[in-house]
This record gives sequence, C-alpha cells and structure tokens, in this order.
Amino acid sequence: MVPTQTRSDQRRARTRAALIAAAQNLLAERRTNVPILEITQLADVGLGSFYNHFADKEELFETAVDDALERFGGILDMLSDHEDPAVVFAQSLRLTVRLCRREPALTRVLIHRGLDITVADRGLVPRARRDIDAGIAAGRFRNTDSRIAVSIVGGGALALAALLDADPKRDADRAADDFAVDILCMLGLPDSDAVEICQMDLPNVDDLLVPAATT
Amino acid sequence: MVPTQTRSDQRRARTRAALIAAAQNLLAERRTNVPILEITQLADVGLGSFYNHFADKEELFETAVDDALERFGGILDMLSDHEDPAVVFAQSLRLTVRLCRREPALTRVLIHRGLDITVADRGLVPRARRDIDAGIAAGRFRNTDSRIAVSIVGGGALALAALLDADPKRDADRAADDFAVDILCMLGLPDSDAVEICQMDLPNVDDLLVPAATT
Repeated sequence: MVPTQTRSDQRRARTRAALIAAAQNLLAERRTNVPILEITQLADVGLGSFYNHFADKEELFETAVDDALERFGGILDMLSDHEDPAVVFAQSLRLTVRLCRREPALTRVLIHRGLDITVADRGLVPRARRDIDAGIAAGRFRNTDSRIAVSIVGGGALALAALLDADPKRDADRAADDFAVDILCMLGLPDSDAVEICQMDLPNVDDLLVPAATT
Repeated sequence: MVPTQTRSDQRRARTRAALIAAAQNLLAERRTNVPILEITQLADVGLGSFYNHFADKEELFETAVDDALERFGGILDMLSDHEDPAVVFAQSLRLTVRLCRREPALTRVLIHRGLDITVADRGLVPRARRDIDAGIAAGRFRNTDSRIAVSIVGGGALALAALLDADPKRDADRAADDFAVDILCMLGLPDSDAVEICQMDLPNVDDLLVPAATT
C-alpha cells in the first residue's frame, strides 16, 4: 500500500526543500556566515519553521552538502554506461576531485565534517564501494577487501581536498587525474592502463550540482 | 654558537614535558574528560603554570598526540634498516594501523583532529612522504606525485582508524596488513609481492609509545 501524503506533509516537504536549496545557494556564493533569518527569507518561509526541520545552521548546511552529494552521485550513476568498470570508477573519481575547485564552499563543509563522510551510508562512499565490488566481480580489479579500499579512496579524496584547499595554485584537474591513476593501480591495474584510462575525455557535468533548482 | 639555556628555560621545559606526559597517561587510560586541576596535580605542577603553556585542555591533548606521533615516528625511523624501501614502508604502515587498537584514546583524538594531520609538517606524514620518495628514487615504486600519494595514505589511514573505531570487532591486524598491501599496489608493486611483504614478521614495539616516561 502506498502511504498517502497529506497536504500538510507536502507543505512540510516543500519548506524543507526550500531551506536546503537556499543553503546550497549560499554555499555556492560562499556565504555560510549569515543569520538564520536571512536563510528563511531567501527560502521564502517563516523564521519559526526553520526549527521544525533543523536544530541549527550547521545541521542545515550539513544536510545541504549531503543532498548535493546525493544528487551528484545520481549524476555519476547516469554516466556509468561504459562496459569497463575501471573506466566508470576512474571517471567518478576524476569528476569528484574536480568538484574541489568548482564548489569550494561545499568542499570546506566536507573537510570540516571530515571522516564521518567515509562511514556514511549515502552519498559517494557507498557508490564507490559498489563500483569497486563491480570491478572485483568482473575480474578487472584485484581481489581485495572493498571496505578497506573504499576507506582509502574516501579518506584519500578528503585529504586531497584539504591539500587543494590549502594550496589554491595546485592544478586540480591534474591532481584529480593523478589521484585516479593511483587508485586504479591500488586496485591492480598496470600503471600504463591506469594512465591511459585517466586521460580519456570526461563528460561535461557543469551546472548540474549546486545550486539546486528552487522552483 | 649554541644558545645557552637558562635555569628558568629548563624549568619551563620540564613543566611543559610533565603536562604532556600527564596528558599521555590520561589518554592511555581513556580519561580525557578531567578538570585541568587534576592534570596539573598529576604533572605535579601549579595550576597557574598550565596557562603559560596551553590555551586549553584541547590544545594540551593535541600537543600530547603530536608528541606521541613524533616519538612513534622516531621508533619507526630506528626500524628502517631493511634495504628494500617497500619493506620499510610496509612495516611502518602495518605498525601504525595496529596502533588503533593499542591506543584507542590517542586514535580518537587523531580522528577528531581529522585531516589537519595529513597536511602537518611533523609526525608520520612527512616520514611517509620521505619513504615514498625513497622508493621512487630507488626505482622500487612507480613514478608518481608523492604529495598526492601521501594524502591518500594519510587520509586512508585516518578513515581506516574511524572504521576500526566504529567496528570494534573488526580484526585490526588483518585490516592493517590489507591496507599496506593496497598501498604497495598503489605504488606499483605486483599484488603477489605486496602480499608477501605484508606477511613478513613485524618487530615488537609494545610499551614504546604511550605513556611517556614521567621521570
């Protein structure tokens, strides 16, 4: 039986979505240090309704980042149509690390959240594990403990994000590709194969992440 | 010219060392939630002298962890006498991850500090970079950007520490060895070589880390 959604449930969901979209717009503009009143005005909801959904601003921004990552993960899912699981995973890694420069405010929230992300059950980490397991099952990756491999990928990506944040002159595209080569080698590909895969053209995912549509 | 150390400099250094040793003892006993007065009593120094050295308890515990890591790094340095840089680095990785179970309180402070550690210029990360550079120079590791590789190793080790902390039943020795195999493969070793190296006997480093000698 499909649960019926009342009109008030729908309104509640719309309010929550409007607050998250407002927070993502603020993240995109790097303006996270604003009063809650300004956030509710941007979202066009009452100040009091904020606290029906979030304990504080930090919780809202964390939710906004989770939502953005979940959406980005959905975009990556749609791109995963190559038959070689190594290509699929390399493209995800290369696009994800490129986010550091495109979405610096979101990245800073991620760095601040830190290692929690790597044990989360939604967003990018479970997708990485799925991709690694698929590569092992296909015999394309070496037989390794994917839970440990995904810790290395997730923790490594966060540490690389911190490095890129601390060193604005470092070429993020190159760092992203070098990172993906390192990870493919970790998963058992020969160096030359890994380099070749990480030089392939990437799909264009601009304007697909933040901000969310606010309509 | 060697700078002369006055008697008051020496006393100051002794006070600081006593506070750090007390904090390391508390970390080892997992008692970080104690009043500053108790810490100064353990260190046998005056309460007021605490604030000559540290802004707050958090700064003291962070310093205590840095000091412990620096000391652990010094121990690893002494062990690094094998001629194969892959063996040297694998032993460091296997011993470091094993710390998670032996020193859970220290590990939690590290997880809490998070990614700062991976851009620090002392402790384990610069040593990891030195070992990776040595392996590349010797032609034992593939030619890769060691700054990115060390981010992966440092971030990966932290994420693995978080995983072990969240899952007390997971076999830490096995996780440590699997982690080291993954990293050696990342650095270009064939799977079979990496597995063989990570099954070698480890030196015994028990009782060498925390607590520091308080004499």
